[in-house]
Amino acid sequence: MSGKLFGVGVGPGDPELLTLKALRLVKENEIIAVPGNDPKDSVAYQIVKGIYEEIENKELMAIPMPMTKDPKVLEENHAKGTQMIREKLDAGKNVVFLTLGDPTVYSTYIYVHKRIQQMGYEVEIVSGITSFCAVAAKLNISLVEKAEPLHVVPASYQIEDALKLPGTKVLMKAGKKMADVKKQLVESGVPAVMIENCGMPGEKIYHGAQEIPETAGYYSLIIVKDKEN
Amino acid sequence: MSGKLFGVGVGPGDPELLTLKALRLVKENEIIAVPGNDPKDSVAYQIVKGIYEEIENKELMAIPMPMTKDPKVLEENHAKGTQMIREKLDAGKNVVFLTLGDPTVYSTYIYVHKRIQQMGYEVEIVSGITSFCAVAAKLNISLVEKAEPLHVVPASYQIEDALKLPGTKVLMKAGKKMADVKKQLVESGVPAVMIENCGMPGEKIYHGAQEIPETAGYYSLIIVKDKEN
Repeated sequence: MSGKLFGVGVGPGDPELLTLKALRLVKENEIIAVPGNDPKDSVAYQIVKGIYEEIENKELMAIPMPMTKDPKVLEENHAKGTQMIREKLDAGKNVVFLTLGDPTVYSTYIYVHKRIQQMGYEVEIVSGITSFCAVAAKLNISLVEKAEPLHVVPASYQIEDALKLPGTKVLMKAGKKMADVKKQLVESGVPAVMIENCGMPGEKIYHGAQEIPETAGYYSLIIVKDKEN
Repeated sequence: MSGKLFGVGVGPGDPELLTLKALRLVKENEIIAVPGNDPKDSVAYQIVKGIYEEIENKELMAIPMPMTKDPKVLEENHAKGTQMIREKLDAGKNVVFLTLGDPTVYSTYIYVHKRIQQMGYEVEIVSGITSFCAVAAKLNISLVEKAEPLHVVPASYQIEDALKLPGTKVLMKAGKKMADVKKQLVESGVPAVMIENCGMPGEKIYHGAQEIPETAGYYSLIIVKDKEN
């Protein structure tokens, strides 16, 4: 019988924000896959190690997930990662693939998930805490109340349009475009908070669009609310 | 010294989707508050009990949170709940307030949180798995990929406008308005999936707008994607 692929969200950084299910699956299974080139460099691996040091005795697989938009390079790497996982499943072994945050929200895991699923293997997604929920918690504020909509918007999207929407806006992955995003936030006069590396070393919070730096790391996120509260 | 208020998300239903931190806080503290009239009727309480039966030996507090839009009734109840919690904090005891899903996403807990915070007490939010992440996991699909925005929209909002937005739409709390929501979904011709009671007893999935029933329970949620995938 073939093994099963589990796509497991490990949350945004704090090892205690792992779910009970995520930790159980890591403990019960021998093969742990993580995105990257060296498994021990992976943030997802480090998060689990923060609460379960014995993970270093598991069989670790690094699944290459280059940060590129080149469709040819992506296709090659997804095919390669799928093949690596498939070999384990065919040998009757389960694979637990760790991914930052939640596997259904902008994760690269999902591309491998779809391929494995289409090949007819059993697959399961295990939810994780999203970065935007963790950021709101850290700031001690609500994201949305009552009838307010919530818009989660990658910076590659038209931020100008998004800022006109009613409700709360979460701007993700703005790192490289931060100067442009900051300009638009300052011009629109909306209340904004930015957080870098939430729950990780180097965490930093910026209150107000004027405070936001022109450059920021990959793990930065901006919350824009309709009004101060 | 005053106690501290923890607002703890217990996730969408599956007790194993509790975070390690949520379970630790329940175990370490004696006073557990839940929304409702009888603590043991509360869904949040039942979720924790599913994995930690000893919760029944804790000091349980039911915090009234009536489902009404009447501002006077809400004000009275939030004031009453705040007072109940405040008495425990003044006695130097921590209070762990359990709430379904995540405390920052449409939770009624947040109103008590704000009041207690404004009074100068220490407060902390502990993130939980949101219902929309759990639903996507259950359906084995991604919510959003690459540059797609995610719009989480309560049914009391203008759904017609929301359906025109690019990206994935999550329609929440549509229960009472389901007939109207269904009509708009059928007319717009978008691919929709509805799930009722995700991860709870009575879970049911409906594929396609035509399949959606005219009436549905409170714990129903619809995912509308730009295209089938």
